[in-house]
Amino acid sequence: MERCCAYPRKNKGQASGDAMDELIGPLLGGDRRALARAITLIESTRSDHRARASRLLTELPTRQALRIGLSGTPGVGKSSFIEAFGKLLTGQGLRVAVLAVDPSSARSGGSILGDKTRMETLARDPLAFIRPSPSRGELGGVARRSRETVQLCEAAGFDIILVETVGVGQSETLVAEMTDLFVLLLAPAGGDELQGVKRGIMEIADLVLVNKADGELRGPALRTVADYAGALRLLRHRPEDPEGYPQAMPVSALSGEGLDEVWAHLTHLARWRREQGHFAARRADQARRWFMAELRGGLLARLDRPVVKAQTVLLGDAVARGELTPEGAAERIMTLLDRGESS
Amino acid sequence: MERCCAYPRKNKGQASGDAMDELIGPLLGGDRRALARAITLIESTRSDHRARASRLLTELPTRQALRIGLSGTPGVGKSSFIEAFGKLLTGQGLRVAVLAVDPSSARSGGSILGDKTRMETLARDPLAFIRPSPSRGELGGVARRSRETVQLCEAAGFDIILVETVGVGQSETLVAEMTDLFVLLLAPAGGDELQGVKRGIMEIADLVLVNKADGELRGPALRTVADYAGALRLLRHRPEDPEGYPQAMPVSALSGEGLDEVWAHLTHLARWRREQGHFAARRADQARRWFMAELRGGLLARLDRPVVKAQTVLLGDAVARGELTPEGAAERIMTLLDRGESS
Repeated sequence: MERCCAYPRKNKGQASGDAMDELIGPLLGGDRRALARAITLIESTRSDHRARASRLLTELPTRQALRIGLSGTPGVGKSSFIEAFGKLLTGQGLRVAVLAVDPSSARSGGSILGDKTRMETLARDPLAFIRPSPSRGELGGVARRSRETVQLCEAAGFDIILVETVGVGQSETLVAEMTDLFVLLLAPAGGDELQGVKRGIMEIADLVLVNKADGELRGPALRTVADYAGALRLLRHRPEDPEGYPQAMPVSALSGEGLDEVWAHLTHLARWRREQGHFAARRADQARRWFMAELRGGLLARLDRPVVKAQTVLLGDAVARGELTPEGAAERIMTLLDRGESS
Repeated sequence: MERCCAYPRKNKGQASGDAMDELIGPLLGGDRRALARAITLIESTRSDHRARASRLLTELPTRQALRIGLSGTPGVGKSSFIEAFGKLLTGQGLRVAVLAVDPSSARSGGSILGDKTRMETLARDPLAFIRPSPSRGELGGVARRSRETVQLCEAAGFDIILVETVGVGQSETLVAEMTDLFVLLLAPAGGDELQGVKRGIMEIADLVLVNKADGELRGPALRTVADYAGALRLLRHRPEDPEGYPQAMPVSALSGEGLDEVWAHLTHLARWRREQGHFAARRADQARRWFMAELRGGLLARLDRPVVKAQTVLLGDAVARGELTPEGAAERIMTLLDRGESS
């Protein structure tokens, strides 16, 4: 697959003056253990780890992989699809990284992809790298670490980065904001279940795949495809799509049917968007959003400064006793931050 | 209903020195037009309106109503229940305010309760006041305005404040954080649909009501009650509950069956929690959360300062062009805020 470096996401001038991080060499060489260690730094809550991680991200040269978001509710056969599709890609000599963004992990600590046996064959493939979702911190934090992990995988020379998420609302949007293409995976269903898929998800999907189009489910699968094809036609055509997209099609992770077509559609879409400038425009827009997310996160992080935290506890008690309004107490903390005596 | 003023939520010392707001008199008199106007100030995005609103909230004396959260998905008969239950309360001479927190309104601008004809009789009742959900701003903003509206209704002397929300996840939590009691309204269903209700919602519910327990749905309703009663028994007993709570019971907004019992249970729960100190403790805890919400909101509001906004746009473009990392750009804005040259 063509690789395009026309889009440096960082300012080399920023690279720290220190000696190069010892992980950089192995990372550029595509060493998977080094990659795993670097990701662990990114996911760490220790500030020295975080600092080293962001130095790493700044020092690493930018490479550009094709980032594919994949969403599907439990039971649609997401793992089997990724396994089959991933093998198809590695079979073409492409290096594939599979990451997961799991909203539930932000709360319950539960994690999809937690257990690689879900994709045994792919996990053993030397051209593949599988990483579960970071399981600590709120969704915003998970998103930040995930997009940094995507950058790492690109720097490590992976060609395709599959970012998987469970179809439960906001997480799809998050994944769509860190990927170039978005694939929605569904199971055969009655037409009446069509409403089950939120309109918002339909609107970010580039391909809607109905899995399990084999055996006795083949008929229902084809009908479901027709239903979604109809629904997709109702959606306003997006400028970043060539004629006829977004598309719905049947696939079978089991028989492998449709997988080649899926890959053909994705490469066609990617090439078309690169030519039309939509590809770069989307990444630019994503970078802008990340900037705003960083800004909000960094601002809120000030509330964790020891002095501020201590005051917040005291004022919180006053508010709880009813001696201060929530608004009034908040104002006092603001003033404290303004006086700059908080750092 | 006993009214308890033992919990002043604000510091009178804070009251502004200006002449009393002309709305205060009518508000204390319980004038519904004045209340509606005051709420409009709270919901306004104009800073002078917001300023007057928060002055109002500080100047108004604190009264304490019983705040009841009510959640139910569309189709369970929420409006008819509120209408019937509200009439029962006003029939006892209690003044009832019905507010709505509609998460969808935060996005689509759509709003439950948008049209009072949903509760015609109650809307015409001089002892009742019905207000739709604020339909502008993100969910956090809707929550802030809603809880300020609750305070206004209390100051205006309402005895019961029903805060309605549609059962779609996060909104229940928001409503539970601004109410004293939480009621979950359900429709008769097969036991297999029991999983449909998220565990988190079951855990915040004080009463689970199965509506439509009349006619041929009476049987299914009773079975559904039994199912939920069983599910509730599985939940760990909460210290703030007397023995036997949370409870599931059948009601019929149509026939009125069960409504008296619902009211009896709610007053029993409220009295018990007041005696045990859980009532005040919960409000104190809520005030603490509001304080933190105010703090986060106020901090993020700094990004709207003209100088900061302008810089943010410029740096955002640089990030989009790939000349700066999102992290680096965010750092620069932080520095700008620290230098305090932003205000």
